[in-house]
Amino acid sequence: MRGLVFRGKGDFGVEERPKPEVVRPGDAVVKLAKSTICGTDLHILKGDVPTVAAGRILGHEGLGTVESVGASVSAFAPGDRVIISCITACGTCAFCARGLPSHCTSGGWVLGNTIDGTQAQYVRIPHADTSLHRAPKGVDEDGLVMISDILPTAMECGTLNGKVRPGATVGIVGAGPVGLAALLTAQLYSPMKTIMIDVDENRLRVAESLGATHTVVSGPDAVKRVMEITEGAGVDTAIEAVGIPATFELSQEIIGVGGNIANVGVHGGKVDLHLEKLWDRNISITTRLVDAVTSPTLIKLVEAGKINPTKLTTHNFKFSEIEQAYSSFAAAAENRALKVIIDFK
Amino acid sequence: MRGLVFRGKGDFGVEERPKPEVVRPGDAVVKLAKSTICGTDLHILKGDVPTVAAGRILGHEGLGTVESVGASVSAFAPGDRVIISCITACGTCAFCARGLPSHCTSGGWVLGNTIDGTQAQYVRIPHADTSLHRAPKGVDEDGLVMISDILPTAMECGTLNGKVRPGATVGIVGAGPVGLAALLTAQLYSPMKTIMIDVDENRLRVAESLGATHTVVSGPDAVKRVMEITEGAGVDTAIEAVGIPATFELSQEIIGVGGNIANVGVHGGKVDLHLEKLWDRNISITTRLVDAVTSPTLIKLVEAGKINPTKLTTHNFKFSEIEQAYSSFAAAAENRALKVIIDFK
Repeated sequence: MRGLVFRGKGDFGVEERPKPEVVRPGDAVVKLAKSTICGTDLHILKGDVPTVAAGRILGHEGLGTVESVGASVSAFAPGDRVIISCITACGTCAFCARGLPSHCTSGGWVLGNTIDGTQAQYVRIPHADTSLHRAPKGVDEDGLVMISDILPTAMECGTLNGKVRPGATVGIVGAGPVGLAALLTAQLYSPMKTIMIDVDENRLRVAESLGATHTVVSGPDAVKRVMEITEGAGVDTAIEAVGIPATFELSQEIIGVGGNIANVGVHGGKVDLHLEKLWDRNISITTRLVDAVTSPTLIKLVEAGKINPTKLTTHNFKFSEIEQAYSSFAAAAENRALKVIIDFK
Repeated sequence: MRGLVFRGKGDFGVEERPKPEVVRPGDAVVKLAKSTICGTDLHILKGDVPTVAAGRILGHEGLGTVESVGASVSAFAPGDRVIISCITACGTCAFCARGLPSHCTSGGWVLGNTIDGTQAQYVRIPHADTSLHRAPKGVDEDGLVMISDILPTAMECGTLNGKVRPGATVGIVGAGPVGLAALLTAQLYSPMKTIMIDVDENRLRVAESLGATHTVVSGPDAVKRVMEITEGAGVDTAIEAVGIPATFELSQEIIGVGGNIANVGVHGGKVDLHLEKLWDRNISITTRLVDAVTSPTLIKLVEAGKINPTKLTTHNFKFSEIEQAYSSFAAAAENRALKVIIDFK
């Protein structure tokens, strides 16, 4: 079979590889129908993620058909259409028992990281019973791929950690795919005002089309604009969906008394925390690697039409064009790209 | 009457002042029996708290007898023995309604800050019905003064924000009065291990006498020691009870996956936040100015002997000796001082 292989910093390409097989009784092998590219994959290519060794097939998102299962797999059988979770969970270790499968002692984020991933014709999924989800029929599969990672990430790391509640004001810093997904999941809690902040006016227009009540262009006046919109109070929830010092700084500047800063962005360096201003503001700051524990609920919401994730996808590429798909995603702003779908037909 | 007056940076002393009177219908005037000195008062004397104008009587903690009340005060009458809350709360504004009286629009921390405080023979208390507590009879009043500030601060900013739970491991960075009070309130939730960390070995011995299961001397090996005690997992709760960059750094180094860093310390400058290490650790960091909403419960716990706050007091001074009391408290380590009680007899 063929897979997209990371060969080392800045070097990657499609290679011929042996088709994966069931190794352990809990494994399933899935034939991919769709995959996508994550911002994290770009970080890997830059050499930012040292756990990814040269030779690794990338990708932690996808949808496909079960090809074979190990002896102990009971929830899935060959032929089942499944969504692959970015988090592999044993379901029984101390972290899984605490609701933290992101830190599962024999799983977590392993796909396209410490084991071969989903940007390939086939992938082996350990702990299949607790790491796959049945794909509902009659639902656009481009949208269902968003269940693999960005919808639960937006829900858990953004909306839930940010404690979005009815009537609240929510500021989302970054209107990329994850920020827009955070907008979709935040809306489930009926906030009064949703303020999207980004440098890219095209993305802000997408945010408006998804129901953002306000948009603010990043820049020297951004804080002033947010304070005008919130009548001086600041936001109840700030969702940091970028992962650089400037956006974390902005999140601190717009947070109101009693508010919650939910960090979603993947940060490569330390940031300044202004405790001299925030120590008495009764705020929380949260971090989280997605646990994907909300994925079953999100699948139901997508199936029922309460969330429409197809709005987060902009481009489709054939698997044979995956290197071009990476280029398009890497230059997202100029290509007006959000999530790019890889089709394996 | 006499009161301790802040005259400007580094300059303070006892002065003769007019006795306060009821100004608004919700006011009470309280004749002080006991007061104490807070670390915040030392910050004021250093000029660190710009809201405190020269001429202000300091102090936001105390216990005494109601002398007079305004027309709308219904919960208290002259002669009542009362504990004064460091937080003045109207009870009706939007912040009070949200459980955030620390940010009450006509109150909050005002005593010894924006209005005259409790280091005086008499003090005027606005919103008396919601800012005083009845002092239980037959309970050591030196201990009851700890209800004014440090016990609810330890409980709300430390134990509750830190989500201390049965069986958890708790690291408390700083074994001063607030850190020790955090130990007392954390014990209400039956943690498995309570690790006190301080530079002062005398304070660590006090912590042991209060039931700390482990003590660690601050220094290059502190993180290693905490990791040994927690079998490599780090702590579930880190309570930062100092307020300097080094102690906030240590709190980040000892926090475990899924843990909560509860900041209690008053910080004068920004700190480094290591999101490059913490973004995927599923932690929370909280800040809070005490709301004193737990004070009624804490009074019952002290009355029932479930918490013994007299262990937090080490020295008694007459009000005529208050300047000496400040000197003793400012050089707390060499004087082995925790809270110093000011008696108005």
